[in-house]
Amino acid sequence: MSKNSTYQEIAEAIRAHDSFILLSHIRPDGDAIGSQLALGHALEEMGKTVHYINEDGLPDNLTFMVNSQKIQTPPENPLDVQVCIALDCATKPRLGENAINAAANATLWINIDHHISNPAYGNLNHIDSTSPATGQIIYQLIKSEGMPLPAATRDAIYVAVSTDTGSFQYSNTTSETYEMAAELVRLGLDVGSINAQIYDSNPYRKIELLRSLLNTLQLEEGGKVAHWELPYSVKLEYNLKPEDSEDQIDLIRGIDGVLAAAFFEELEDGKIRVSLRAKDDSFNACETAQLFGGGGHKRAAGIRMTGPIADARRKVLEVISKAIS
Amino acid sequence: MSKNSTYQEIAEAIRAHDSFILLSHIRPDGDAIGSQLALGHALEEMGKTVHYINEDGLPDNLTFMVNSQKIQTPPENPLDVQVCIALDCATKPRLGENAINAAANATLWINIDHHISNPAYGNLNHIDSTSPATGQIIYQLIKSEGMPLPAATRDAIYVAVSTDTGSFQYSNTTSETYEMAAELVRLGLDVGSINAQIYDSNPYRKIELLRSLLNTLQLEEGGKVAHWELPYSVKLEYNLKPEDSEDQIDLIRGIDGVLAAAFFEELEDGKIRVSLRAKDDSFNACETAQLFGGGGHKRAAGIRMTGPIADARRKVLEVISKAIS
Repeated sequence: MSKNSTYQEIAEAIRAHDSFILLSHIRPDGDAIGSQLALGHALEEMGKTVHYINEDGLPDNLTFMVNSQKIQTPPENPLDVQVCIALDCATKPRLGENAINAAANATLWINIDHHISNPAYGNLNHIDSTSPATGQIIYQLIKSEGMPLPAATRDAIYVAVSTDTGSFQYSNTTSETYEMAAELVRLGLDVGSINAQIYDSNPYRKIELLRSLLNTLQLEEGGKVAHWELPYSVKLEYNLKPEDSEDQIDLIRGIDGVLAAAFFEELEDGKIRVSLRAKDDSFNACETAQLFGGGGHKRAAGIRMTGPIADARRKVLEVISKAIS
Repeated sequence: MSKNSTYQEIAEAIRAHDSFILLSHIRPDGDAIGSQLALGHALEEMGKTVHYINEDGLPDNLTFMVNSQKIQTPPENPLDVQVCIALDCATKPRLGENAINAAANATLWINIDHHISNPAYGNLNHIDSTSPATGQIIYQLIKSEGMPLPAATRDAIYVAVSTDTGSFQYSNTTSETYEMAAELVRLGLDVGSINAQIYDSNPYRKIELLRSLLNTLQLEEGGKVAHWELPYSVKLEYNLKPEDSEDQIDLIRGIDGVLAAAFFEELEDGKIRVSLRAKDDSFNACETAQLFGGGGHKRAAGIRMTGPIADARRKVLEVISKAIS
């Protein structure tokens, strides 16, 4: 990894230019959209022209965010901008082809991220893998360089960091994270209201999905393995979106005594996507995934394999059983 | 309410005595047990003798807490102690008859709580209804008076405050709450580990309960009312404990478009316990509950009425429908 640019160098580059395109990764989450809105509103407050572009647009679950409608899908032709700032995006291709095309006129690329694997694909780069969220890096940039922190930025930073830390729970949460939250509250953040909007609102189809998954839930190996599945017909029946099934597997990984959890999802082409989760070091999700050509991390890994679902289930569970015994 | 004692007055009283009984409310939650363990370990570090008594003992979901086995049910005869400290308990009877009897020899009562309705039943009282948790009051007492803050106290404070704020989400969360969490991390708290123990661990019977509830879920009034139910036979089948169904109703209150949620639970004696929840001010849960002799708050209220479940459901839903139309 090349040397990080300092916050000062990044702030100077921002001050020296007038027009910006802000990008983040495909299938954007709270940290992606939150970082775009947080930095963008600070730039607008500085008098800059800002375009907020995401390959996949704004996901439904983040439409509550102030000015979130500014997040647009890429226009057909490149925008007339001087600078592109890529946020929370570990690799350049993950910005999406059309989004990259929209930024084709930019002569300066700034890359701000917290993914350790980021190859520093910008002209200026600030990659901080000790930060739990890109939103927290944006906060530090703004505070250390005396940039404006309007209400829309304040709230967007909170959404970014809260969602990427599982509401301040994951091991990546630091004392600086909590200090930042304290400062955002002092700046007027409405904690109850914003959290109700982030966490206390679910489309009914997600509840229908959960019911459907629970009705297929099975435990194996004396309760050490939990698995459930989602046929494509159910996705059609409830008009499910790809993001609806994200993180649902955490519920069965969290069952007392479960060491390994597996989610078998039938795709439109009949292939099966398998998500694997480990509770601790007694099961290595990545090693099992690699045996089927998949990959990932020790605690979370994935496979894409041929169906039908029953065959995939049998094969994968056989390997998991051996691995944990 | 009588005038609050200062932290200094409470700390002086603690320093002037040697033996303590620490109590909290019946059906204890994370703030009750967390406050007992937090203050108790600080007192032990000061060389005091401490008895940790709870009318209902230690709930299963908090056995992960360091030294939690010190929480005992009341002994038959009063303990030989000078001081009783009641924690997180809004009224004296809510401590439980046997627990109060265990404290009968105490000549000084200290009452520390965050419930606004607390009538200040101690000789010394510190009631702070602006604090989201009694655990946060314990933290402030310890910090302001230079009392010891050992690891067991540090972790217990975090559990108390995290559980009473819904992981730093509820509107009662203040900037001081986040600052406190930052300081606990600086003191060595393992954020990832303690949160996994608080939130990422469920007995299988709770998952079976959720599946059973979801299979009875119905929406009414074009999706403005959600309700589900739990027959007593299901409680027996899955060997459910009273705390298993707590807070599950939040899932259906959170469905987009739902204004009122109702949970109908059949009790052993055939009576029906009804829990009502409102999403916002368009439904007043307390007003509906009062029509059936129940009560509570605007957003959360309860009723106990005669069964069978189908009759109770019909009657209550009829009133809810009128209330929201």
